[in-house]
Amino acid sequence: MAHSLASFFNPSSIAVVGASQNPAKLGAIIFQNILDAGFMQPGDSSSHCAEQPHVSENNTLRKLYPINPKLGNQSIAGHAAYASITDVKTAIDLVVIVVPGKFVSGVIDDCVKNRTKNVIIISAGFGEVGNHELEDEVKEKCAAAGIRLLGPNCLGAIFPYAKVNASFADGMPKPGPIGFISQSGAFCTAMLDWATEKNIGFSHFVSLGNKADISEMDLVAAMAEDPNVEVIALYLETIAFGAPWMNLIRNVAKQKPVVILEPGESTAAQAASLSHTGSLAPNARIIREAYRHAGAIQVSSMRDMFGVIQMLTWAPGRNMGRNVAVLTNAGGVGVLTSDLIEKYGLKLPRIDAQTTAQLQAVLPATAGLGNPIDVIGDADAQRYQDALDVLVQAPGIDQILVLLTPQKTTQVLQTAQIIAAARQKTQKNIVASFVGGQKVRPGAQLLQSKAVPVYDFPDDAVRVMGLISNRLGALESTDQIALPSPEPELVKTIKTAKANGLSSLPQPDVRDLMASVGVQMPVSCESTNKAFTLAWAADFWAQNPNEVLVMKISAPEAIHKTELKGVILGITDEEELENAWEMLRRSIAKGTIKNATIQTQHQIQGGQSLILGVTTDKNFGRVMVVGAGGIYSEIVADTAVRVLPTNRFDQMLEETNIGEIISGARGEDPLAVQALHHTMQAVQNLMLTYPQITAIDINPLILTKTASHCVDVKIILK
Amino acid sequence: MAHSLASFFNPSSIAVVGASQNPAKLGAIIFQNILDAGFMQPGDSSSHCAEQPHVSENNTLRKLYPINPKLGNQSIAGHAAYASITDVKTAIDLVVIVVPGKFVSGVIDDCVKNRTKNVIIISAGFGEVGNHELEDEVKEKCAAAGIRLLGPNCLGAIFPYAKVNASFADGMPKPGPIGFISQSGAFCTAMLDWATEKNIGFSHFVSLGNKADISEMDLVAAMAEDPNVEVIALYLETIAFGAPWMNLIRNVAKQKPVVILEPGESTAAQAASLSHTGSLAPNARIIREAYRHAGAIQVSSMRDMFGVIQMLTWAPGRNMGRNVAVLTNAGGVGVLTSDLIEKYGLKLPRIDAQTTAQLQAVLPATAGLGNPIDVIGDADAQRYQDALDVLVQAPGIDQILVLLTPQKTTQVLQTAQIIAAARQKTQKNIVASFVGGQKVRPGAQLLQSKAVPVYDFPDDAVRVMGLISNRLGALESTDQIALPSPEPELVKTIKTAKANGLSSLPQPDVRDLMASVGVQMPVSCESTNKAFTLAWAADFWAQNPNEVLVMKISAPEAIHKTELKGVILGITDEEELENAWEMLRRSIAKGTIKNATIQTQHQIQGGQSLILGVTTDKNFGRVMVVGAGGIYSEIVADTAVRVLPTNRFDQMLEETNIGEIISGARGEDPLAVQALHHTMQAVQNLMLTYPQITAIDINPLILTKTASHCVDVKIILK
Repeated sequence: MAHSLASFFNPSSIAVVGASQNPAKLGAIIFQNILDAGFMQPGDSSSHCAEQPHVSENNTLRKLYPINPKLGNQSIAGHAAYASITDVKTAIDLVVIVVPGKFVSGVIDDCVKNRTKNVIIISAGFGEVGNHELEDEVKEKCAAAGIRLLGPNCLGAIFPYAKVNASFADGMPKPGPIGFISQSGAFCTAMLDWATEKNIGFSHFVSLGNKADISEMDLVAAMAEDPNVEVIALYLETIAFGAPWMNLIRNVAKQKPVVILEPGESTAAQAASLSHTGSLAPNARIIREAYRHAGAIQVSSMRDMFGVIQMLTWAPGRNMGRNVAVLTNAGGVGVLTSDLIEKYGLKLPRIDAQTTAQLQAVLPATAGLGNPIDVIGDADAQRYQDALDVLVQAPGIDQILVLLTPQKTTQVLQTAQIIAAARQKTQKNIVASFVGGQKVRPGAQLLQSKAVPVYDFPDDAVRVMGLISNRLGALESTDQIALPSPEPELVKTIKTAKANGLSSLPQPDVRDLMASVGVQMPVSCESTNKAFTLAWAADFWAQNPNEVLVMKISAPEAIHKTELKGVILGITDEEELENAWEMLRRSIAKGTIKNATIQTQHQIQGGQSLILGVTTDKNFGRVMVVGAGGIYSEIVADTAVRVLPTNRFDQMLEETNIGEIISGARGEDPLAVQALHHTMQAVQNLMLTYPQITAIDINPLILTKTASHCVDVKIILK
Repeated sequence: MAHSLASFFNPSSIAVVGASQNPAKLGAIIFQNILDAGFMQPGDSSSHCAEQPHVSENNTLRKLYPINPKLGNQSIAGHAAYASITDVKTAIDLVVIVVPGKFVSGVIDDCVKNRTKNVIIISAGFGEVGNHELEDEVKEKCAAAGIRLLGPNCLGAIFPYAKVNASFADGMPKPGPIGFISQSGAFCTAMLDWATEKNIGFSHFVSLGNKADISEMDLVAAMAEDPNVEVIALYLETIAFGAPWMNLIRNVAKQKPVVILEPGESTAAQAASLSHTGSLAPNARIIREAYRHAGAIQVSSMRDMFGVIQMLTWAPGRNMGRNVAVLTNAGGVGVLTSDLIEKYGLKLPRIDAQTTAQLQAVLPATAGLGNPIDVIGDADAQRYQDALDVLVQAPGIDQILVLLTPQKTTQVLQTAQIIAAARQKTQKNIVASFVGGQKVRPGAQLLQSKAVPVYDFPDDAVRVMGLISNRLGALESTDQIALPSPEPELVKTIKTAKANGLSSLPQPDVRDLMASVGVQMPVSCESTNKAFTLAWAADFWAQNPNEVLVMKISAPEAIHKTELKGVILGITDEEELENAWEMLRRSIAKGTIKNATIQTQHQIQGGQSLILGVTTDKNFGRVMVVGAGGIYSEIVADTAVRVLPTNRFDQMLEETNIGEIISGARGEDPLAVQALHHTMQAVQNLMLTYPQITAIDINPLILTKTASHCVDVKIILK
């Protein structure tokens, strides 16, 4: 039974197996890191009497044990060494293992005897070099004994608030709001060096290694509960879970920003990642959509990850909405920034009349009062101040980006002070870009010292603002969704079909299933009897005098209808129907199609051809695809993808070009978009209610001005 | 008659009208800038006897005249002042005018009397505030007198090699390879400040202002000839010319990189630009395609422009081709960089067998020998050296990107030295990204000091490499193209149609025109006589027994064929033809279509529907569009655009999804792509040969496995 990670994050006792007197050894480095982090001086970092165990923050004694069979009776840095974990008589909270891989399994045996709670295996030589048996052996021993395991093959873990540095990282980060998890040790060292320079602090800093036990799931779940964590940032090369992972992110992201960097968008990266980690990246598009929908901030490069972390560290609790006012002393730079604002999904709202009047009152006549607001080249600090005073109060503006270029009368330092002061007075996120070199440097440094986000170029500012702000939009769509209960009759129908060895549901059952969620398919007759079909058609034409029929072969196994002349369109009378019947019978015989019947159906005229489907991804479960149909569907790939459940079918359609067309946005007549939402909802309900169904494929779905017609529906069974 | 700009770029005499003794005045600042730049100490910047005119580099006397009516008999900074330009008895090479706008026209009168060669009008108050009459007046006076004019409303111009700083910019750039032109004064000051910090030098540094006379055309043409200029960089908000400008860029870009930043991609930017410059941006897509095709390096932000300038300054003459080897000590960072390489249009070539063997010989067994080449986390400087020694010699690699993260055994400074030394030994462009903070800083500084491009994150390196490298690909397609001569008979036909008030050419003439460039349209009969058409059809079916016909209304004025039932497909016999004829006659009557005939045409079965057209843009002339056709064409907008002429029809098709399909790339049968190239060539020939044609629109063009069928061709007249 996996226990909570409380004793892992805040251990009262740590042992280092492989501790050494040789300062070049990893074991010595880790032991020294633990001491340097102040593990033995909790609550009083100024005292330095490391020889005695000390009282930790929650008043328990903290203990540190160097373990090394060769140093049994000696001591390391004043701490008595033990030959083996088994020589320590009390259960240890955290054992850090740094011995060569081949000795690790034996050390775990000792840990089991000691009733150790958690281990970190720094040592390499496991799954990452193909030695999966050794990894499994260690993993199973730990699992059996209830020992939680980080690694193997990792840099270790750092918990600055608990004064724990159980890693061989060079340097100790200060405590701060970022919970950081990385599947790459090198990424950790680069992040640590960068964060130290930028004065950014961490609550957790964890190198995952091979993830034999403790995974991103455990860590994010714990960080979600920890009030010290304000932002969770992850570098992941593989994910251990699909749907549960996304559900966790979705829940956590409502409270705290979750920043995720996963390489592998490109073919080249997938190949490189394959050789690097020995595992395959799942469908990049599904992952991307799933994260976005879960409200994660997805970044695609180190620059973006570092930039987002920095902005979030500097701007806790600020309004980071989409509406940005740009204030500039250079019109051209303002125009360039407008391009960026649009590119990165932000908005330049129109400045309201009252605010415009206020700006007009304080700015010269030649100033630009649109958005960007151009205080023009001869602006001094006071003019920036006057404009900022207005904008800070202005409605409909979430963030303010202040641009400055060094011109004759520009007062760089004073303007920086004004920006910093304005930021103090508002919850709006105020960000600056001072563009230039030595002349603007002092202003940028002043802003940085006051934790005002400041960038060399507007590009970086806008990109980071966009990445963070867009998360808010995605978060809106994560409401709870109620699902219908399965109908026992239908479950029986599905099971019967399966028991009969069918890979897809027969058409009459498809019709029942669709009807159960409120979707009527076009009227249809499925039969092997010509006379019966003729009678049905006569009745149809009596009721629908000007309508036409389509006839197609229906069979439980997939067939290539077009190749086999399996579809005949535009049947308007009995004679045509008889001809079509004979033609299809010949096709059935020629293709030796088993269990085939002939389906005669009302042919929907006009409208727009769409595709709608739900498949089952092995990581993420149900995934819906909707988009343009017809012969071009494969070429244009104009689709939106969503990991279910969702209630933002409107948003999915907005993401496609065809969605714009059917809503009438491009001068076309609007089609029955609400009816399409209803169909999407119904298909989602089916897929989430009946686990026996693997996929539903509606192709085509014809959307007319009045209805959504599911013309051809396939329901695939497991 | 506009004279050459030689006396503008290297004047022997300069007058400043509005020179002042008050150091806060622009006139005083400009006068001081001229002195500080060493204008009066050519050839000996250490001597400081500014009172006397001095011998310039080409041994002529250089003279400097402060002009101010209030200071007639006084002197400024030791130079005797004059009340008016007319008091100077010799013709002045360059007069800089800094008086208020309303006095400028009078000053120009004085310049005309003086036979001044060039003027720079710094003063504002012209077209930019709506005072177009004053601007036109000044412009016409200068033109009439043969005076070249920069401005009005500009920062001035700096020519460091000639020791001329005729601007009020704060600071003088050092001489160097960059010719810089900007339509924004603020962009100039930001660039100057940035470049000074980065130690980047300029040959020219020109603020364009309102472009009343001297434009980007004049300046780029001059820079193209100047051996001091290695890179031309422009920030432009409007362009004065279309096609001739692109032709100039195309010619210059073959010799020197031309970097262009034009804002206005986004709707918001277009609105902002409108208010900022008072002029409308032309079609952004055509401009983008035109620049790309001309071989310009188009950047979309200041960060990119500055980055490209820096890289080009650092890497003159280096191989900057697409094939990049990535060397890293962090696998994850390598994978992330692979994503970037693909995103920015570069390639990670497979490392050849011999190079792999050589790497294997020098790297540890656990190293990654693909590309990225992973020297793994414990790499010291020597291991980087060993790998670099191999890669520098390796075939098929144009550029090497060296990534470094600070790990335990990383030797930052030594590795930096090794990278700088390797760069000395090769023409390959070697670029570095040292990712981290204080630990990697010394290495980055060392690289920077040795002019090795080094970046905080691989993002910036790869983005800039991609921007520069992609220019090379575009340049390949700028060969000369031979055009046929117009046929007098066809010119007469076109002129007759025009004279008859037709806006498009009648179909029989269309057929002749297409035939003249070797394009046969599907056989067709256009008639108002049913019996004649029936006879033609009988003949057609005799020769093509299994083929079908399509009938459509043909009329000189545009009609909405589908709405009026103007097209009837799939006609297989005489009876269907007669029915169709009657139906179309009814449509013609109902729509009261003038001069309508009925066209009966061989209906092309199967194949892929495309669109191909050429329109006439008022700035760029002939613009070709090719792409996916059919009912989806408007939705998918899967098209490529080119300003003609071009000879890379293959490249245009490659840019579209449909191009991939028709070439058989997605498992489809390949279609007659060569025949399509031929049609594109033919349409280009027509459009470049007959100026009387405004547009050609082929929709659909049906491409089958054997031929390119121009099914419906419209030729629009002026």
